[in-house]
Amino acid sequence: MSERVYLDWNATTPLRPEARAAMAAAFDCAGNPSSVHAEGRAARYLVEQARERVAGLLGAEPRNLIFTSGGTEANALALSPQLAVGGDKGPRDRLLISAIEHPSVRAGGRFAGATIEDVPVLSSGVIDLAALQARLDVLRATATGVRPLVALMHANNETGVVQPVAEAAALVHAAGGLLHVDAVQSAGKIPCDIERLQADTVAISAHKLGGPKGAGALVKRSEAIHVGDPLFKGGGQERGSRGGTENVIGIAGFGAAAEAAGNALAPTALRMAALRDRLEAMLRDISPDAVIFGEGLERLPNTTMFAVPGIKAETALIALDLAGVAVSSGSACSSGKVAGSPVLAAMNVPAALAIGAVRVSLGPASTDRDVDVLISAWRNLVAGLSKGRREVAA
Amino acid sequence: MSERVYLDWNATTPLRPEARAAMAAAFDCAGNPSSVHAEGRAARYLVEQARERVAGLLGAEPRNLIFTSGGTEANALALSPQLAVGGDKGPRDRLLISAIEHPSVRAGGRFAGATIEDVPVLSSGVIDLAALQARLDVLRATATGVRPLVALMHANNETGVVQPVAEAAALVHAAGGLLHVDAVQSAGKIPCDIERLQADTVAISAHKLGGPKGAGALVKRSEAIHVGDPLFKGGGQERGSRGGTENVIGIAGFGAAAEAAGNALAPTALRMAALRDRLEAMLRDISPDAVIFGEGLERLPNTTMFAVPGIKAETALIALDLAGVAVSSGSACSSGKVAGSPVLAAMNVPAALAIGAVRVSLGPASTDRDVDVLISAWRNLVAGLSKGRREVAA
Repeated sequence: MSERVYLDWNATTPLRPEARAAMAAAFDCAGNPSSVHAEGRAARYLVEQARERVAGLLGAEPRNLIFTSGGTEANALALSPQLAVGGDKGPRDRLLISAIEHPSVRAGGRFAGATIEDVPVLSSGVIDLAALQARLDVLRATATGVRPLVALMHANNETGVVQPVAEAAALVHAAGGLLHVDAVQSAGKIPCDIERLQADTVAISAHKLGGPKGAGALVKRSEAIHVGDPLFKGGGQERGSRGGTENVIGIAGFGAAAEAAGNALAPTALRMAALRDRLEAMLRDISPDAVIFGEGLERLPNTTMFAVPGIKAETALIALDLAGVAVSSGSACSSGKVAGSPVLAAMNVPAALAIGAVRVSLGPASTDRDVDVLISAWRNLVAGLSKGRREVAA
Repeated sequence: MSERVYLDWNATTPLRPEARAAMAAAFDCAGNPSSVHAEGRAARYLVEQARERVAGLLGAEPRNLIFTSGGTEANALALSPQLAVGGDKGPRDRLLISAIEHPSVRAGGRFAGATIEDVPVLSSGVIDLAALQARLDVLRATATGVRPLVALMHANNETGVVQPVAEAAALVHAAGGLLHVDAVQSAGKIPCDIERLQADTVAISAHKLGGPKGAGALVKRSEAIHVGDPLFKGGGQERGSRGGTENVIGIAGFGAAAEAAGNALAPTALRMAALRDRLEAMLRDISPDAVIFGEGLERLPNTTMFAVPGIKAETALIALDLAGVAVSSGSACSSGKVAGSPVLAAMNVPAALAIGAVRVSLGPASTDRDVDVLISAWRNLVAGLSKGRREVAA
């Protein structure tokens, strides 16, 4: 088999060279960041340097960043009735989530099932802001004054469709609510300034932007926002918001990757978008009936999700893998499952089409050749299937 | 400054060469273990290979091991009223913890504060089994039939004193309870066979045995034990017990470190114990009034905690650090705090003595020279202090 073509960067990314170098250097850092001796202080330095770098990617204050083991933990940490701002009292008593959130958000963190509500999306895959406003109005009008936490992802992991986060934030804040944004897929690909998003908390993950798996962060817009109910208590690390010895090597890699991603953000996005557009044009040449989800909307520059009627994603993935090309049929964590994409279901995509959904996601290292190999493999797949159909018909 | 001497291995360890090599090799593994393509399967292989290696250190079945971000998370995951075995019904309604547990256990996980009780230790630092039995008897005699979860660490992180875990397990099981064992400090230093310990769940951490910070595991004695209430839900990883993309690089390092630690367990323990005994003898030569906590009891072979009346730990740590020697005044995560050790307080050590407690913890790479440098620095410290006293008196 010739060199593999990896086009599943939304599932996870190869390590950036900067992350690899930072991690290899951290191999020699033997101390515990909580120790006061020289070895401990050296480890603490690596963690705090990385905190500045990662916070910088979001335009946040380093002190408002809590390192976690990944995006899933960051989402779980934020989604608590105890998430508070300033001197507000009493627990948040309702969690509103968009219908296209990642499973780690859909699970609702520490909100009881009965207190979690879906907010629908339009058929485009964009949150229905009118429905959100209507629901916030109803909650506000209740006698008890329901205090909602709202979760809206920045960009969808499957379709890449970018959500109107700042607009949603304005509605949520006007209703006395807080907004949590899962920016796991957008951070490092498009600008994610926390002030511009007006998100109160943002979850990000190292391994989606060229860092290692096993590191992530919950970032707060201001120091006034409190994680009232840490998931891990004990050692007092992360200003009491997350106990446990810090993943120094992983965090060092996260910091280096975040800095590198931030430095190259705009040119990389342009290059990936051009590559993605070329890919979609070539795909249409072969499969004119391809449906590209979120086409024409603001999407992540690296993502395309499409379906061709009559071609099952499972068949396509296996054929492409054998041809040396790695793509996905949706979010990686759901990839072992037979069930269709809940994202496409929320967009009212017919099940017969949704089972054909293939996601191709590019990265900074993706090349024209990668796209050519994919397209060539797709052409062979389509030819093989139509030959098969002709033979069956004959 | 000449080469540093690191004698704080209970706080965290340098990476074993085997862990370093495994992690560097995993740098090239770009896939997500949940992806079905070749890149994903390669990442899955690394995780499952490490699962076998880490489980092997405890004589456990790989399928009964849940990877976590460290010992703190593993403790938090186990300490839930929803921890269940087989078909048992209803939540556990009481958590009994020994008075010398790590802060991450003392925090009580998801048990409400009012349902958590301390079990005292004897002045030796060993759990008071009679007190445990008496408390279990009372709980069992209540009309509602209280169903306890008991947490007892395998070896104390400060004194190194090994606890009678199997004896405690027999009492707990006879009373219908479950036993969780924090073996973070013992794993890789002394045998930790989960069947011999008769622990129902065991928490371990990679960075205490030569692996990286940021990886740990909760190990179950049998498949019948269920984590009823995962901390992170969503992606379905770790058989549904712990969502989130696996820390592939860290887990690979954990596996390699666990295997290396297990292979060299007995000879390393003998060598460290001999070094520790030599250290204690030399210390006594200089400071005949030194109190060595847990002396004469079964202790971890690498650990000594002592206090010399009139010498404050804070003073000693700073002086030793300046002399190039890293030691600790207790658990690393408490090292920045002024408060005395809760472990020594539970042993009824007078506060005036406890503020002098210095912990020296050796590792597989520790040498006679390391001990010589420490002892020489200690001698200088004692001489300097007594000179200071003479001058003040003059």
